[in-house]
Amino acid sequence: MTAHTAREFIVGVDLGGTNIVTGALPADGSHTYGVRSASTDVDSGEDTVVDRIVAQIEQTIAATMTEAGVSRDAFRGVGVGAPGPLDRKNGIVIVAPNLGWKNFPLRDRISTRVGLPTTLDNDANCATVGEWWLGAARGARHVVGLTIGTGIGGGLIMDGKLFHGASDVAGEIGHTTIDVNGRHCKCGNYGCLEAYASGPAIATRAREVLARDGAGSLMPAMVHGDLEQLTAQTVYDAAKQGDPVADEIVRDTARYLGAAVANLLNIFNPDVVVVTGGVTLAGDRLFSPLLAEVRRRAFAPAVEAVKIVAGVLPGTAGVVGAVRTFLDG
Amino acid sequence: MTAHTAREFIVGVDLGGTNIVTGALPADGSHTYGVRSASTDVDSGEDTVVDRIVAQIEQTIAATMTEAGVSRDAFRGVGVGAPGPLDRKNGIVIVAPNLGWKNFPLRDRISTRVGLPTTLDNDANCATVGEWWLGAARGARHVVGLTIGTGIGGGLIMDGKLFHGASDVAGEIGHTTIDVNGRHCKCGNYGCLEAYASGPAIATRAREVLARDGAGSLMPAMVHGDLEQLTAQTVYDAAKQGDPVADEIVRDTARYLGAAVANLLNIFNPDVVVVTGGVTLAGDRLFSPLLAEVRRRAFAPAVEAVKIVAGVLPGTAGVVGAVRTFLDG
Repeated sequence: MTAHTAREFIVGVDLGGTNIVTGALPADGSHTYGVRSASTDVDSGEDTVVDRIVAQIEQTIAATMTEAGVSRDAFRGVGVGAPGPLDRKNGIVIVAPNLGWKNFPLRDRISTRVGLPTTLDNDANCATVGEWWLGAARGARHVVGLTIGTGIGGGLIMDGKLFHGASDVAGEIGHTTIDVNGRHCKCGNYGCLEAYASGPAIATRAREVLARDGAGSLMPAMVHGDLEQLTAQTVYDAAKQGDPVADEIVRDTARYLGAAVANLLNIFNPDVVVVTGGVTLAGDRLFSPLLAEVRRRAFAPAVEAVKIVAGVLPGTAGVVGAVRTFLDG
Repeated sequence: MTAHTAREFIVGVDLGGTNIVTGALPADGSHTYGVRSASTDVDSGEDTVVDRIVAQIEQTIAATMTEAGVSRDAFRGVGVGAPGPLDRKNGIVIVAPNLGWKNFPLRDRISTRVGLPTTLDNDANCATVGEWWLGAARGARHVVGLTIGTGIGGGLIMDGKLFHGASDVAGEIGHTTIDVNGRHCKCGNYGCLEAYASGPAIATRAREVLARDGAGSLMPAMVHGDLEQLTAQTVYDAAKQGDPVADEIVRDTARYLGAAVANLLNIFNPDVVVVTGGVTLAGDRLFSPLLAEVRRRAFAPAVEAVKIVAGVLPGTAGVVGAVRTFLDG
């Protein structure tokens, strides 16, 4: 058991449309305590979701007290990462389609219940900060984070500081156009990266190809003929087994992501691009053609300056980053 | 005549593939003195171009001495804006296709000849800084500059500071993909904004449309039937006269630029986007559909936070910004 000074611990909350993840870290980031994950259960309504978050924070606090041998006085606050456009200053989730929320005062709802100062930041910002503080982008000066799962989020760290922009929107990399005449995106725009390379978009593209010509693909059998059951994971699994159709879909995904990452290199010229989220499960089958595409598209001095890496804190990057945004807030 | 303190003046140089523009400002930016513009005459070779730059700096110094009533001792240094990927630290132009230069030590060549400390920065960065210091983006905290002429360059000011990235490439907005399967760009990439919306790209698109069907367009007659003579200016002039083909080309240009600007809003969330360069000659005929496209594509809180404006220092933004980058360097 390490000696800890008073009020040293911060609870991090990573609120997603599917899961709530919580954990606690001391301000020096030396260890992550009391990690808990449970389903968000969005359909039960916003009050119940807040109840679930609060209960889980209390579980994390209790577990941390035991694990680290500290009292409740050791806890300084709560950092929350949530989807959305957010109003950070007022702690409000402006819109979160996956949660069905609009103008929801999440920060104060949590703070009042837990009795600790609470901050709110974007979930993809938190994942980026987590990987920068304690993960794959540690020590870098300029970092682009790309979180690819149900949606595609992003975060920007410039000169060692998270960049929020004029109204907390900065980093919405998933909603940048890579094809001006392209696919409709659920944000209302056309040709967004998210409409091509998010988990659901990968599954949709696979279903489209299979509906035209599934000959030789293992995927229909993997979902027992029900293509609606097909997910991005199905595509990765099939590609690993040598399925040529799945392999082509992974390569196309790499091409789309490569174009977006090349754009970020030419705009930002970062030291590190860190990719987190479900898409990293595709492994080198995705990363190798992605890196090749970036080299084809971006300026050589930007390619030479950057490391493009997968996150090393799967499951906890958001929690770790939420703690750090509390500390920096 | 104002009283000026010793060594207060800085000469700014805006080196382009077509023209060299010079001018001098005192450190308080209160006035621009001795502005000179002359052709770069690239074909005469790099030594001659350096001779021309140096001669023009001396003309600007002489004119400023007369206009401001100061001696040569009043000059503190020279700030140079040049195309390229650059190595700022070593003052080298790495590659500048429009100048035909590779690894050219421009900064020291100028400094040695003029006998004043000299700094080097990217020309589009300088134009952005100029508009931010004394022009249309004055006082803004986060600024994206877009310079649209023969090429498309960009500059980023974040938290009131020019952002260079890890290897001085940051801001290459012209070379971001807006169509992953799109037109070949001279940078080697496909679907770059520059391949659609630079002056020459606008002219190329016009020629392509006219070669297919020029019926009802004034443009062929405006270039006496020689479509090779057609420029972006021809398109703007024809659109002003109500030419439907030219109007369509301007609208398409607005759509391409709108997609790129929307990307920048979602990535950066700036206070101001300032557009400079030849394309601003198209006026509201371009700006109105551009703003409409941005509203269609970008997130509402980012659209609400931003002003998208044309530069107000045509011809001198680069010089003004080169002076400021010297001061900040």
